[in-house]
Amino acid sequence: MYSLNDKKRIIDEWFNYLQIQISSEFQKIENNFSKKPAKFKTTEWKKENINQGGGISMLLSDGVVFEKVGVNKSCVNGKFGKNFQDKILGAKESNGKYWASGVSVVAHMRNPKIPALHFNTRFIVTSKEWFGGGIDATPSFKDLGESKIFHKKLKNVCTANKKSYKKFKNWCDNYFYLPNRNEPRGIGGIFFDYEMDNWLKNFKFVRDVGLTFIDLSKIIINRKIKKTWSKKDKITQLYKRGRYVEFNLLYDRGTKFGLNSGGNVQSILMSLPPTAKWK
Amino acid sequence: MYSLNDKKRIIDEWFNYLQIQISSEFQKIENNFSKKPAKFKTTEWKKENINQGGGISMLLSDGVVFEKVGVNKSCVNGKFGKNFQDKILGAKESNGKYWASGVSVVAHMRNPKIPALHFNTRFIVTSKEWFGGGIDATPSFKDLGESKIFHKKLKNVCTANKKSYKKFKNWCDNYFYLPNRNEPRGIGGIFFDYEMDNWLKNFKFVRDVGLTFIDLSKIIINRKIKKTWSKKDKITQLYKRGRYVEFNLLYDRGTKFGLNSGGNVQSILMSLPPTAKWK
Repeated sequence: MYSLNDKKRIIDEWFNYLQIQISSEFQKIENNFSKKPAKFKTTEWKKENINQGGGISMLLSDGVVFEKVGVNKSCVNGKFGKNFQDKILGAKESNGKYWASGVSVVAHMRNPKIPALHFNTRFIVTSKEWFGGGIDATPSFKDLGESKIFHKKLKNVCTANKKSYKKFKNWCDNYFYLPNRNEPRGIGGIFFDYEMDNWLKNFKFVRDVGLTFIDLSKIIINRKIKKTWSKKDKITQLYKRGRYVEFNLLYDRGTKFGLNSGGNVQSILMSLPPTAKWK
Repeated sequence: MYSLNDKKRIIDEWFNYLQIQISSEFQKIENNFSKKPAKFKTTEWKKENINQGGGISMLLSDGVVFEKVGVNKSCVNGKFGKNFQDKILGAKESNGKYWASGVSVVAHMRNPKIPALHFNTRFIVTSKEWFGGGIDATPSFKDLGESKIFHKKLKNVCTANKKSYKKFKNWCDNYFYLPNRNEPRGIGGIFFDYEMDNWLKNFKFVRDVGLTFIDLSKIIINRKIKKTWSKKDKITQLYKRGRYVEFNLLYDRGTKFGLNSGGNVQSILMSLPPTAKWK
């Protein structure tokens, strides 16, 4: 069996690897469709207290495929303030102490026919230790075929790991919902948290979800990258992105966690689209 | 002396008048600089429970001077949920019951050399009753001359009403601050709340602040409306607007109040810019 330190070390290395793998695959896609491809830029950051970790942000801006995509990896530890302790499982019992490592990706596409894609997997330790994560998509246009492919892949990865796709799908639908607008953010996907019953099996699931995200991204992008679009389509996408901003700033727990754990603002808010519109 | 009902009736009429006055003045400005001027569109909305009031939203979009300006008036009442009662003065003692009327304006300018302008005045009743409000500006470019004119006018209206400009200026600086970015939203202005010592005097102050806003807007806009600007200047403005969105969705109490009092989402979020960018 693994000690907690072993688990942390192994997981952290997986997330380092995953960041490189995802960004390389995305770079390849960008290279395939552009003569002068935009390149990922890598920024390292440390928490103010440098003993509390930091992260590596990889950002590709102004690409032909990706208008903006961030692939972030961070590994931080520290102590939550009193007010935030109630909100994190097991944090009261650990006196606010936590450790967290994870990778998250948000891809905003140039072509408005291709949905924005979001992915995250993480391992969090307080007095408890658990995995969380998910994959979801936010199209600006309805496409039942796309939705079917997307959800089928996600169902497969859950089933193969004896996880309840239905539970994670519902969780995703409930989570990515804008109460202020009375509308879902996108077409959902899977969302899971507090996975702690069997570390080895859960870790395998989390690895599979990461690889599935790469697979899915390629399928979703390739399916539509050559579709033409009008200025009107673009504007539709920009309004949809406005909703994306509202969700992330008003409701997203990840954003709140980041801002409350002394994370790097530029990395936390890398999820925000390059451009958005409001009526 | 006025009964509470009299006060509510009078104040509400003032805010009705002020909305019309501000929107007319802004319409005139727009008409002056455009051959085919964009027009204010008026939308009335009611709370779900129609006995709890509603509001009138006036929105001018895609103008030559105003890229987007909202002039909102609302008069609502109801009962705050348990969680929100702690956050509003006197709401616990009123069992969450409240009444509120006010006007708020956010103007996002086409010309990036002209600052975004924000104004609000309100009267709120729980077990207490008080006035609040303010005026502030968010330029995308430094302009000391502008800042001087702006703050001088605000100082004058405070002094003429025996209010502490210094106190309200500091309050404004503290309020319109983005802790996540470690930066102020704009150049400040005045912000006041819980004004309750002398109803008649406070009401006069609130009226004067409203009229000062009209004055100031004209001065600020006319000073620069003919200044040329480049695409690069526009992009600078769009990034600044990104910060504006962050402030309004992450920190603004007005937004939270609105969403928690069953307000009209489109009106509450009318403060959001027509377009914004993030790096």
